[in-house]
Amino acid sequence: MLDYKLLEALAMVIECDGFERAGGELGLSQSAVSQRIRALEIRLGQPVLIRHPHLAPTPAGRRLLNHYQQVRLLERDLRTALPTLETASPRLRVAINADSLATWWADAVGGPCQEEGLLLDLVIEDQDVGLRRLRDGDVAACLCASDQPIAGARCVPLGTMVYHPYATPAYIARHFPDGPTHDAFRRAPAIVYGPHDQLQHRFLAECGYHGPFPYHLCPSSEGFVRLAAAGMGYGMMPRLQVADLVAKGRLESLAPDRRLEVPLYWHFWRHSGELLERLTSVLRRVVLT
Amino acid sequence: MLDYKLLEALAMVIECDGFERAGGELGLSQSAVSQRIRALEIRLGQPVLIRHPHLAPTPAGRRLLNHYQQVRLLERDLRTALPTLETASPRLRVAINADSLATWWADAVGGPCQEEGLLLDLVIEDQDVGLRRLRDGDVAACLCASDQPIAGARCVPLGTMVYHPYATPAYIARHFPDGPTHDAFRRAPAIVYGPHDQLQHRFLAECGYHGPFPYHLCPSSEGFVRLAAAGMGYGMMPRLQVADLVAKGRLESLAPDRRLEVPLYWHFWRHSGELLERLTSVLRRVVLT
Repeated sequence: MLDYKLLEALAMVIECDGFERAGGELGLSQSAVSQRIRALEIRLGQPVLIRHPHLAPTPAGRRLLNHYQQVRLLERDLRTALPTLETASPRLRVAINADSLATWWADAVGGPCQEEGLLLDLVIEDQDVGLRRLRDGDVAACLCASDQPIAGARCVPLGTMVYHPYATPAYIARHFPDGPTHDAFRRAPAIVYGPHDQLQHRFLAECGYHGPFPYHLCPSSEGFVRLAAAGMGYGMMPRLQVADLVAKGRLESLAPDRRLEVPLYWHFWRHSGELLERLTSVLRRVVLT
Repeated sequence: MLDYKLLEALAMVIECDGFERAGGELGLSQSAVSQRIRALEIRLGQPVLIRHPHLAPTPAGRRLLNHYQQVRLLERDLRTALPTLETASPRLRVAINADSLATWWADAVGGPCQEEGLLLDLVIEDQDVGLRRLRDGDVAACLCASDQPIAGARCVPLGTMVYHPYATPAYIARHFPDGPTHDAFRRAPAIVYGPHDQLQHRFLAECGYHGPFPYHLCPSSEGFVRLAAAGMGYGMMPRLQVADLVAKGRLESLAPDRRLEVPLYWHFWRHSGELLERLTSVLRRVVLT
């Protein structure tokens, strides 16, 4: 069996961002904390912490931390059965797509997180990367557009987010005077979330356009909307996120009959305990559109 | 002198996300594009492209691309003097802190970007990492909180962003019934942007508290505000970003007499051309608070 005192020391060093503070929290000297980390590294045969430029877990350290957090989740269930056991707040590390985090996520999970005293450790990743992190044990759950199941994990469909090609009315009048033509796509600056963002390409392909197009790269959901609202480009945005700006007439779709649907799936390890089951049942009730 | 046809092929492969599309754009066969990339890699002695799982530049390729974009910026100035020269839209790669991108950035630069046909390639980084990217030639400019100048670059102060510890009134009533006490800090869940985010630590230190505290990690400006508005925690947010929610009474400061000021600086290479000078003069006029 693993020595959980060593894992606890690692978790506390990361959480407190320092050996001395971690020692203070654990009632140990700084050197006792160092010894526990060293014992863990000897047992593992590799480092668990990067010291410079900031204290951070190595990939191996990150896996240990995730395992530690899963054990803490299970302990929480145990405490319900044995209420005299004392344990601290559980943490859940989740990979999540940026648009969900920028829209419906907090309202959906806010209640259960407060009731259960659950702390979230959110990582923004989409699709393949998020699932790879789940497979590697780097996160306990993943919210993404992929329905590809991971062995040992459950995959629950949550519905779809609907995207439209929004821009300001002035931008549309200037760049799309004749509607979404190929000539306009070739010249009008688009906004793309990142180099692996396929939504813009999917939209253009649905319009029958496969050529190059100018674009801004903006890896922030909120920044993306702001660039569009400032008239800098058009881009695929969730209706959910810009409903207000659309209602005010500040953004509109340049191709009202086109929409893209992005399904969302919630992936999590089986046997992760009751809390994750409860969170899942909350997520099942989310209405995305 | 570098062979800019090779660099152009590299830029087009990345921009079009494929050799065939890049060839179509350049009027070359796919294999001619491959040959140019190979010629570049032979000349450089190392790869410029990663093929799997997605087409992406290597760090060396990224530096070449940035150089290529800077040359394009200079060509743009040349075109003003020699208007018969035809050149495509210039691109500017900028490292920017997430909160600026989520608030004032687009409104400030939207006008000049539209007038000049400038395309932005934004990278979210704070402080040290953004400056390191500038030093490495990975970005042409960097907007961050550090006033540490880079040799060969200019550093222009833009003012300060003001942060307050906001939460919902219900959250404050529940977790801070006696105000910002040490006991409350020890128990109340905070929200922290990332493991190297120092704002929360600075705030607690100013309140005289140096112990551990529970927190959610949320590396998204918009997600951060949504977690707070859903009552999941308190956190340091720019007044600029939550003015609406504060006006509606949905968020308030839990320590109205405390505020943190974060200065912002605009770093960019000297001799980057007129467009960057013009953008800089626009940024100088920004009023952040």
